[in-house]
Formats: sequence, C-alpha cells, structure tokens
Amino acid sequence: MTTKLLALSPLTDANITTLEKYHVTVVTPENITPDDYSDIVISYGWRSKIINKILETPNNQLKWIQSFSAGVDFMPLDDLKKHQIILTNTSGQKAVPIAQSVMSYIFHFARGLHVYQSQNHWEPFEQQFTLQELPVVIFGTGRIGQQIAAYLHIFGSTVYGVNTTGHPVGSFENVFAIDNLQEIPKDIAIVINALPGTTDTENFFNKEHLDLFKNLFLFVNIGRGSTVNEQDLLNKLNDGSIQHAALDVTKQEPIPKDSKLWHQDNLILTQHSTWAGESESLFHVFMKNLPDFLTDKPLTYNVVDYERGY
Amino acid sequence: MTTKLLALSPLTDANITTLEKYHVTVVTPENITPDDYSDIVISYGWRSKIINKILETPNNQLKWIQSFSAGVDFMPLDDLKKHQIILTNTSGQKAVPIAQSVMSYIFHFARGLHVYQSQNHWEPFEQQFTLQELPVVIFGTGRIGQQIAAYLHIFGSTVYGVNTTGHPVGSFENVFAIDNLQEIPKDIAIVINALPGTTDTENFFNKEHLDLFKNLFLFVNIGRGSTVNEQDLLNKLNDGSIQHAALDVTKQEPIPKDSKLWHQDNLILTQHSTWAGESESLFHVFMKNLPDFLTDKPLTYNVVDYERGY
Repeated sequence: MTTKLLALSPLTDANITTLEKYHVTVVTPENITPDDYSDIVISYGWRSKIINKILETPNNQLKWIQSFSAGVDFMPLDDLKKHQIILTNTSGQKAVPIAQSVMSYIFHFARGLHVYQSQNHWEPFEQQFTLQELPVVIFGTGRIGQQIAAYLHIFGSTVYGVNTTGHPVGSFENVFAIDNLQEIPKDIAIVINALPGTTDTENFFNKEHLDLFKNLFLFVNIGRGSTVNEQDLLNKLNDGSIQHAALDVTKQEPIPKDSKLWHQDNLILTQHSTWAGESESLFHVFMKNLPDFLTDKPLTYNVVDYERGY
Repeated sequence: MTTKLLALSPLTDANITTLEKYHVTVVTPENITPDDYSDIVISYGWRSKIINKILETPNNQLKWIQSFSAGVDFMPLDDLKKHQIILTNTSGQKAVPIAQSVMSYIFHFARGLHVYQSQNHWEPFEQQFTLQELPVVIFGTGRIGQQIAAYLHIFGSTVYGVNTTGHPVGSFENVFAIDNLQEIPKDIAIVINALPGTTDTENFFNKEHLDLFKNLFLFVNIGRGSTVNEQDLLNKLNDGSIQHAALDVTKQEPIPKDSKLWHQDNLILTQHSTWAGESESLFHVFMKNLPDFLTDKPLTYNVVDYERGY
C-alpha cells in the first residue's frame, strides 16, 4: 500500500527516490487531482489554502503536517488540533551553524586571536588556554545547548547546564534548576546564554545574576537579546569582572549607530547571523519521523504541543 | 644498579621520586662532577655544550637523549647517529593546543569573525560556512595532523592527508603520497601545513604546489616556516586565489618590522605561540619510553629517524 504525500516544499529527485523506497507517492500542487484531496496523508510543508481544502474534504486522510519553520504561531493550531493532525516543526535545525559560531567565539578568545588580529608587530601572546581549562555553563539545554555541549565535550571541556527544573540532559555533566543558581560551581569560565525569549527570561542576565560568576573569561549570547541587561553587561566588561563577550543577539536589531556596544573592545558582535551556513536539510528533519509514522508508532522528533504552542 | 640521568630540563620533586623508583639517579648541570661525564646514560633535554663534552669523553655511556622540542633539525644529527645515540623528541606533546589553534583559525574565517571583529556598524555577513562545507587536506599525518583530523571529524569535515608514501592513517578519509599530489580532490577548501622542516620540504609550498589548489578558502601553516615560499603565498593572497591564511610559523622569527606580512589584511599571524595552553607534561612524554629503555627493549615513542631527520 502506498502513502500519498503532498509536497508543498521542494523535493530533489534523490528525495523522491528515497520516498519511493518507503512506498510514499508524491503529489504536487501542480499535478494534484480532485481525488487526491481525500487521499493525502502527509503534507510536506504548509500552505493554508490547499490544506484548508483538504481538511474540508469529507473523509480526508490527512494525519501529519511537517512545517518548515521552527515557530508555528501563524498556523490555526486549534483547528489542526480539532482535526487530530500531528504537527512537527524544524526546531533545532540551525543548531549546527549556531553551535559552530559559539565554538568560533570560544576559540577566538581562548587562542588569542582577539589580540593577534590587530597586532602588527612581534609580541607573542602566551596567555592562551586549551578548552579543558575553561569550565562552561550553558543556560538552555534544548537542541542548541545540546549541540554546543556535544562539541565542547570533544575538547575535554567540563559542561554544566541550566534549565527550568534541573532535569538531567544527556550531554551535560550536571544540570541546575534556574531558581537554584548558587549551586553552580564557582570556577565557571564561560557562560553561554541559549535561553528562549519569554516574560520569565526578560533581563535575566542583569547585575544580580552576572554577579554569580566571578572573573568570567567569556559571556556568550546566542539566545534572545531580551534576556540581557546590556548596561549591566557593559559595566562588567569595563570593570574587568567579565573579560570578554560575544553577542549574536541584542535588544535592538539593527544595533543603533550611536550604541555603546560598537565601541567596546572586549566585545564581539555578530549581528544575528550565527544561523548562516549549511545546516541539516529539511528533508533530513522530515525523515527522522517518517519510519515511525509509516509503522503507526508515535512521532518523537519536534512534535508541536498544541497546549504550549511550540 | 642505578642509571645516571642528566637533567637539562627542570624536574619536580615528584618527578625525581618517580625516577628513584626506577633506580634512576639525577645529575644536574649545577652538581655535575668530572666523573659523571663518562657515567651519564640518559640526557633529559638538550644543551649542545654539555652534551658535546660528554660525547668527547672516552668510553662515555650516553645512550638516549630526550629532546624537549618536536623539531630536532638544529641538532648535529649525523654526529649523534655516529655515536649510536637514541634520540626521542616531543612530537605531538603540544598536539592539543596546536590543533585547537588550527580550529580557531578555521572557525575565525568560516564563521565571519574576521569581518565582525573590526566592524562597527550594522552589516550582517552571511557568507558563512559550517565545516562540512569545507573539505580539508592536512600535509603531515603525524601526531599533530591526526589530532587536527580527529577534531575536524566531529564537525563533519571531510579530511584528507598527505605523507611521504601515501600510507593510510586512521583518522583520514584518504591519504596521498607527497609525489602524487594531482590525485587530491579538486574541491579542497582548506590546506593545513603540518610538514616538518627538512631539506625535502624547504619551500615546498611555492607557486607550483599552491597552484594545485584552485580558489582556496584558507591556507594554514603550523609546521615550519621554511616550508613556505612567503612571496608566492602573498601573491596568491593578493590575486584572490587564496582567500585567507593563518601562519603560526614564518621564515624569519621574530618577523622583521618592515615585513610585508604585517600588512596583509586576509592573513593572521600568531607569532609561534600555538603551543601555549595546558598540554601533556614533558615528563609524561619521557616516561612513555623509560621502562622499555631500562629493560633493553627498543623505544617505540617518538624515536627520531636519523635518515628522515624527524
């Protein structure tokens, strides 16, 4: 028996060959026939008009929509829930490029490139570190935090995590609850902020919370700009209690021309671009669930929780 | 019976206690007596004046010199060979910090930090790469090359190697013989030079050999400065056929004040300091061979081949 898939996002010939092996037949918006509306089981991508048409078709078979965005707040979630559609998103699909940018920040300062890049005379800078010397705590233990932790492990780093409840996550040495930060070891050298932007996390990294870390080597933000009190961070970069910082995200983007951030020597700004570069293909994300779907197992990868909305 | 060791590099009290367990007696240049010259069996470190004195002593017992550099090209190798001295070096002891510096170079250019570090206005730079997009060839498949390859694998890089005979080495996708370079795949983005400094490798990276790589993203030298024709490299950095370079070693060190190298924007110079940061201890390297030496077994770790010169 074959399963009909509606391709609302492009598929390569190789993708289609792979799908054929799973007895999945591809229908496109261009070659769709009236009969298909009641037969389509999987929607690969989202387009409201055509999906509404399917859902309005009596006895339609649509069971799974693979969205190709990370956020799904623009979709009629209540309606999809009512139709008992399984919705999956692409959360974490950019984890690889983002985590590689985090590695670039750490190596930049640990291996002295911040000094060498602007130096045009001979003056070797030997205050360099290997990563095993720099214990790390990552705020946020989701896909991005996990990818960073996985990379750091290879270099012998000690990596702690922080999440809402302190529940353990595989690649972290130890995970602390966000309301129990005083338990974090005192020798932390690098803080990586991968927190989501919610009302709970707004200005989380203010003087009080930054004070928990004494003589920090590096503060990184690849989460959301809203989570950092930038003036408090600048004060610490200036009084030396934080030696370096790297911010991909900031409160205001673009950063205004007259912002003090532009003139802070021990700070690097990457202008919300750590997502750039080749990442996991959308098809690859989709394929993580397909075998389970075809064998009537529950999907486990990036399934949207209609109550939480993500 | 005890074995006399001349300590030309510092030993801690703990090191000396360990040596005593092996019945090794330590002599230092400060407490050496005329009798010791004929009795010393192991030299822990190199100092030409004192070692020459030993070698000139009739019936001297010197059998093993542990050099505390990776390169031994500055030593009188022919003379040592004639005296049938076993010479071991510290090749690979700095592999971790050096390989982490190589990662810092790659990430610096791949993740756009070379642009962002000097930018003080909003202009996102999206021509970034993840490492899986940048195939690498490493010249030199010894300890340092292997450590770099091991790190790169984690990031999904394709890593080829080059050595004298093309013999396979574990962590490389494929290894090519140095006289068979035309077989190297044409899509190489990064060349890492970890060649030793020998007469064979002098100016190896000249126009002819650099021409093998079309539109190179990055050229790295953490081997020996003697292996690169710097003017040929500068020409390529200027005509754009090599986009970026990172040199830890150069022909002249310190680099002269009036060198053109200081003024090449797409080049980063790290002034022979990639060794810096925590690494394996010298004593630990030495101890890998000591038990074999004391039981008359052939040494297996880092033994210099006098024919090859490393």
